[in-house]
Amino acid sequence: MVADLNVERARELTNGECEVVSDANLVVTHPDIDIVIELIGGYGIAKDLVLKAIANGKHVVTANKALLATHGNEIFKAAQEQGVIVAFEAAVAGGIPIIKALREGLTANRIQWIAGIINGTTNFILSEMRDKGLDFNTVLQEAQRLGYAEADPTFDIEGVDAAHKATLMASIAFGIPVQFDKAHIEGITQLQATDIRYAEQLGYRIKLLGITKRTPHGIELRVHPTLIPSRRLIANVEGAMNAVLVQGDAVGATLYYGKGAGAEPTASAVIADLVDITRLFTAEPGHRVPHLAFQPDAMADTPILPMSEITTSYYLRMHVADKLGVLAAVTRILADSNISIDAMLQKEPAEGESQTDIIMLTHQTQEKFVDEAIARIEALSTVIGKVTRIRLEELE
Amino acid sequence: MVADLNVERARELTNGECEVVSDANLVVTHPDIDIVIELIGGYGIAKDLVLKAIANGKHVVTANKALLATHGNEIFKAAQEQGVIVAFEAAVAGGIPIIKALREGLTANRIQWIAGIINGTTNFILSEMRDKGLDFNTVLQEAQRLGYAEADPTFDIEGVDAAHKATLMASIAFGIPVQFDKAHIEGITQLQATDIRYAEQLGYRIKLLGITKRTPHGIELRVHPTLIPSRRLIANVEGAMNAVLVQGDAVGATLYYGKGAGAEPTASAVIADLVDITRLFTAEPGHRVPHLAFQPDAMADTPILPMSEITTSYYLRMHVADKLGVLAAVTRILADSNISIDAMLQKEPAEGESQTDIIMLTHQTQEKFVDEAIARIEALSTVIGKVTRIRLEELE
Repeated sequence: MVADLNVERARELTNGECEVVSDANLVVTHPDIDIVIELIGGYGIAKDLVLKAIANGKHVVTANKALLATHGNEIFKAAQEQGVIVAFEAAVAGGIPIIKALREGLTANRIQWIAGIINGTTNFILSEMRDKGLDFNTVLQEAQRLGYAEADPTFDIEGVDAAHKATLMASIAFGIPVQFDKAHIEGITQLQATDIRYAEQLGYRIKLLGITKRTPHGIELRVHPTLIPSRRLIANVEGAMNAVLVQGDAVGATLYYGKGAGAEPTASAVIADLVDITRLFTAEPGHRVPHLAFQPDAMADTPILPMSEITTSYYLRMHVADKLGVLAAVTRILADSNISIDAMLQKEPAEGESQTDIIMLTHQTQEKFVDEAIARIEALSTVIGKVTRIRLEELE
Repeated sequence: MVADLNVERARELTNGECEVVSDANLVVTHPDIDIVIELIGGYGIAKDLVLKAIANGKHVVTANKALLATHGNEIFKAAQEQGVIVAFEAAVAGGIPIIKALREGLTANRIQWIAGIINGTTNFILSEMRDKGLDFNTVLQEAQRLGYAEADPTFDIEGVDAAHKATLMASIAFGIPVQFDKAHIEGITQLQATDIRYAEQLGYRIKLLGITKRTPHGIELRVHPTLIPSRRLIANVEGAMNAVLVQGDAVGATLYYGKGAGAEPTASAVIADLVDITRLFTAEPGHRVPHLAFQPDAMADTPILPMSEITTSYYLRMHVADKLGVLAAVTRILADSNISIDAMLQKEPAEGESQTDIIMLTHQTQEKFVDEAIARIEALSTVIGKVTRIRLEELE
């Protein structure tokens, strides 16, 4: 049985092979239905319908990352109590079987970190900006024209969609409840073509990564533009493709690549979930793969770190007056904050100009030290405007 | 219970936590044992023990690609009859959960082709040959010194190991019995540094690929050095890493990358199999994922094509006398065989030399036409020695 507001179109597509209704409540309460597939999206109606389906003892397959990242704890708890499965392979990285890989294929591993290109729209935009040297707005318009970006692209370009997916992967990797509200989210709208070019000269590419990492103090969960070494395989993932790099303690690094969106890749993941559920009909519920990989009573309360406590490397670009002593002042500030410099690039001022760019790559340090240093650098009279800060991950 | 000929070492490693015996028969017949893990390798003792374990109603987890590629049909049939599972994630691409991806994650897809870098030793050698411009024998010795190649590297460098893995993937992808004897196997021992260099100039890298492809006439199953476009992600898989590229009709291309060998990656896959089996203890045997993805009664008898019938593109290098008319004669022969040329590279003769290399890349054609053309080209008086032929795949 199919529910769609556009009954005519649904009838056409299903070619008379199944009943079509406009009220989805008829599906989630139907006594003959064992599995409900939710492909509506959003947190409103979709949430009600999923919870109603669960309450009626039905398994659910969903591609709804927004719903699970924000209401997953409530939904998985209800499913657990009802003894039904909520399967969501399609919710992360589309057709790539990454949920299966994390929950089953890598089950022997203690996951150390995950870094993923998990939003095709932004990866397309970044690829085009790099290839053609164009700025963000020009490429966004092209992406919209080509159908790679939606009319309202906010969720994609502001990193929200990637954060939904990273939130789900963090929970599966580290056995913590979903906590989308704790994720640091930074999109690509502020990214300058200049920085893509400088990064390139230093041997790096800029990608929008969803990163989650286990540290001795807590878990990092963040989405932001990131410099990664050009020679890394994931740096070469171009266009609207997705890729997830997973570091496990036994297996080392594994990478999963493919289409992260689109009707057919999504259907591929949905059908795989459907087959999985039917295979498990006869198995004891307690033997199933837990929704978030860990048994509910084995979940951890490891905190998600505030951004000031994360540890990473940094790309810093500052626009300075071409005067004696600027570099000394900047490096002194960094040294004061115990930030050591890994590489530096100083451009000669353009003909007839008296200002120039200094680019520095730092070694690993805590974000709060960089915040302090940037505030002091920006206060220098020889530094013009804001310091551009982009995080850098070696992904080794 | 652990069986090892080196009882002392096994006792040390297991730290008194389980019984150690030297006779593996005690394991495969032990009444309290449900699952046997076979990590002996080879077709001899391993085969007897696996069949004995199955006959005794035990599930088996194995990393033994050689055994399954040559005796898989017999082993899977016995397992099916006994209602037990033979799990073999570790047999293909080590720690990468590729068997799970193919059998479960991509279950909705009709697989069109698979191309994999599935032997770490040869990929390490090819990476070194390219990076350092060294010849095969020099790099092989270095690989042996570093432990990337075994003292007797035959199975790796001759492509046999890759063919074992490709054979298993072909069966899972296309629902055919394992037919290792039908695989075309060509290693990297004849590969010249010259060809790696020319390929590079033309925008290609040379990788040892295991390829299996569904065509309207049958299935291709072949292992050989292959030119692939440098910009493809899989072309950038370096060192001893593995990667498998899968083309499915719904999901499109997906790629799976990681360590293909080593104690810990293998253990990662073995434990994942172990967990899978225990999850299925209570499920009805008929609901399990079939060994080769297709139910035994749904297997196909699609033939594996002889090499003369495969379709691909070619890199041809010929050493010729620098005389008028050579190129005309060669291109005439190719035209006669309906082989069209995609790109050509003719080097000027070195100072004082009267011979030079002509390199041609062809469009897709059948292997038998290329065989004929090469025979005719080699018969030309202006062509010196043999024509070097390396297959080329666009992997689109």
